[in-house]
Amino acid sequence: MDHIEQTFQVNYSFPVHFTEHLFRAGNELFGDFLLARRGDTVKKLLFLVDSEVALHHPLLDGQIREYVSGIEGYALAGILQLPGGEGCKNDRRYFYEIVDAVNELGIDRHSYVVAIGGGALLDLAGYASAVSHRGIRHIRIPTTVLSQNDSGVGVKNGINYAGKKNFLGTFAPPAAVFNDAFFLTTLSDRDWRSGIAEAVKVALIKDAAFFGWLEANAPLLAQRDPDAMEYLVQRCAALHLAHIAGGDPFEMGSSRPLDFGHWSAHKLEQLTGFELKHGEAVAMGIALDSCYSFVSGRLPEEALQRILGLLLQVGFEITHPGLVVDNAESPLLLGLQEFREHLGGTLTIMLLRAIGSGEEVHHLDVALLQEASHYLFHYQPIHSPQ
Amino acid sequence: MDHIEQTFQVNYSFPVHFTEHLFRAGNELFGDFLLARRGDTVKKLLFLVDSEVALHHPLLDGQIREYVSGIEGYALAGILQLPGGEGCKNDRRYFYEIVDAVNELGIDRHSYVVAIGGGALLDLAGYASAVSHRGIRHIRIPTTVLSQNDSGVGVKNGINYAGKKNFLGTFAPPAAVFNDAFFLTTLSDRDWRSGIAEAVKVALIKDAAFFGWLEANAPLLAQRDPDAMEYLVQRCAALHLAHIAGGDPFEMGSSRPLDFGHWSAHKLEQLTGFELKHGEAVAMGIALDSCYSFVSGRLPEEALQRILGLLLQVGFEITHPGLVVDNAESPLLLGLQEFREHLGGTLTIMLLRAIGSGEEVHHLDVALLQEASHYLFHYQPIHSPQ
Repeated sequence: MDHIEQTFQVNYSFPVHFTEHLFRAGNELFGDFLLARRGDTVKKLLFLVDSEVALHHPLLDGQIREYVSGIEGYALAGILQLPGGEGCKNDRRYFYEIVDAVNELGIDRHSYVVAIGGGALLDLAGYASAVSHRGIRHIRIPTTVLSQNDSGVGVKNGINYAGKKNFLGTFAPPAAVFNDAFFLTTLSDRDWRSGIAEAVKVALIKDAAFFGWLEANAPLLAQRDPDAMEYLVQRCAALHLAHIAGGDPFEMGSSRPLDFGHWSAHKLEQLTGFELKHGEAVAMGIALDSCYSFVSGRLPEEALQRILGLLLQVGFEITHPGLVVDNAESPLLLGLQEFREHLGGTLTIMLLRAIGSGEEVHHLDVALLQEASHYLFHYQPIHSPQ
Repeated sequence: MDHIEQTFQVNYSFPVHFTEHLFRAGNELFGDFLLARRGDTVKKLLFLVDSEVALHHPLLDGQIREYVSGIEGYALAGILQLPGGEGCKNDRRYFYEIVDAVNELGIDRHSYVVAIGGGALLDLAGYASAVSHRGIRHIRIPTTVLSQNDSGVGVKNGINYAGKKNFLGTFAPPAAVFNDAFFLTTLSDRDWRSGIAEAVKVALIKDAAFFGWLEANAPLLAQRDPDAMEYLVQRCAALHLAHIAGGDPFEMGSSRPLDFGHWSAHKLEQLTGFELKHGEAVAMGIALDSCYSFVSGRLPEEALQRILGLLLQVGFEITHPGLVVDNAESPLLLGLQEFREHLGGTLTIMLLRAIGSGEEVHHLDVALLQEASHYLFHYQPIHSPQ
């Protein structure tokens, strides 16, 4: 024998639920999920709650305590509040706060860490859960549009390190995701809007019909119509989930089409000290790469106009001083290098051939980026937003 | 739609090679592995070398530089020395040393971190690689018996935290394992012997014929016969790999038969401030759980005598003051709780019905543990070692 080839498969499965008032008496979704997974011994639940959510939902803490006390075979180990937003991913101490709680409260691999919050808190909680005891079961309850339709339903987690987004993290599917539409009602306008960027993104690379729906419903979305948002979240989440299951869930290759518009967005977030929200930066990143697709001769100008028009109509800004490329030394361009390094292998950037149809390239031209970024910076909508 | 069920599979595959003088000119194994995985761009190699190995193999550094310079499509990013032994898993700064090197040297997800060392260094390197950029490809070159036949060929990594073994870690299959028998020649007698404990363990729960082979070859193993060791390493690694592939590779259930003898071993390592090596503690743990299997009426005394006889003949000690259970407050018993907590769910301990055949139980009786531990403490071999 000179070698043994070790080969095995691991199967993953988790439900993504859509509901409202998850912890209200009478909503049995969460309890039923847990009851179906009871064991011989009592399992513990450790809740991690985004302090922003706790602030807007002062009854939540009591509701959780009441709700969990009614689930046989489970015990509430604690409810820990943590700051939401990118800050919780930038400071390592929050990671250790969760790990310490897991240790001190005796949360084991068959217990559940239940995280309630925006994408940043879910990323942090998912990472701390994934590495404690080599992986504690983790339930996600995303509370923002962005996390309900995109990051919260996926398989990634992470924290920032050395100024780089998600430098430390893992691929670790959650045990379940519960999207509760009621949390969306208390979002700020910025947070409501921010998540729409990921819906525009996935429509642009996967689904022209959904893009048409977004255009038709842009006024309703801008006015915070809950039914329009419900459809958007479910359709976007479904496209996101289908892509993961059908592709390369743990990103072993170099292609990452769901990161359309993200190479510049990640860098812009960092360049602005995270003053821009992720979705706001993604909207600008989509605008830039769509414009690049146009100036490089891939995308017709009429399609570009529709994309920029939709972003503006939803209320996004499409440019920023940090997004402007003046020469090969422009700080934004470091984002290309960092993006390549994070994925590894050959630089692979998604561009557009048409609305609903992407094309991967392995090089962006600085002169064309300059042209695209200046086009955006001086952009005057042909049709003013309705 | 009220829910989406997300289901997917991830396939893992990696070779485990057995060779000698891996980096000597003319041995093309390592180079061929990499050449088969060349990309369009140059991939980097970051070596992490156990300082104990570097000390005993002063030519290794130069050999690696020379060898790697001949592999087209790859560049040496650096060779970082780190202390081996449990110390590197106890102090977080070594984890951050690796993460910082990954960041500063621009090691991406398609680059390789190549770790050369004992089980502890491999656990640390595997963990740091698994969480940097959500998973950098990782090649293991185990240099001890223990890591070549057991931990180094498996899928786990980790570091210690809050005094608990492997509290932080992941399941992350390596890209490849290269077992180089030459490294075993420079081990201390303790390290040579230590790894044999895992071979005794896997034989006891899986393969009576291999146990017979170990008995027949115990004198050769004690005399450091390289051919006997070569067979032991390959057979033990093969049984370990087959178990992982055929079972529950990422330990989603509560059963962990490969941890026979380990609940007390982990605790004993910690109670002795890691003065006992892992394999030495495992030998004692095997003795204790075999003895418990006897006093609880599962295992015939003749089989117990053969097990203790083999351990003693190889040169292991089979008891220790810390292994003695006097009452329900004995410190060792905390190991049961910690073991359960790490796995989660119901306590599941492997015992023996016969040599080569295990039985899982969910409870250990303190009075019987007391009896078993005292039996061992006062044990007089019936046949003195040959």
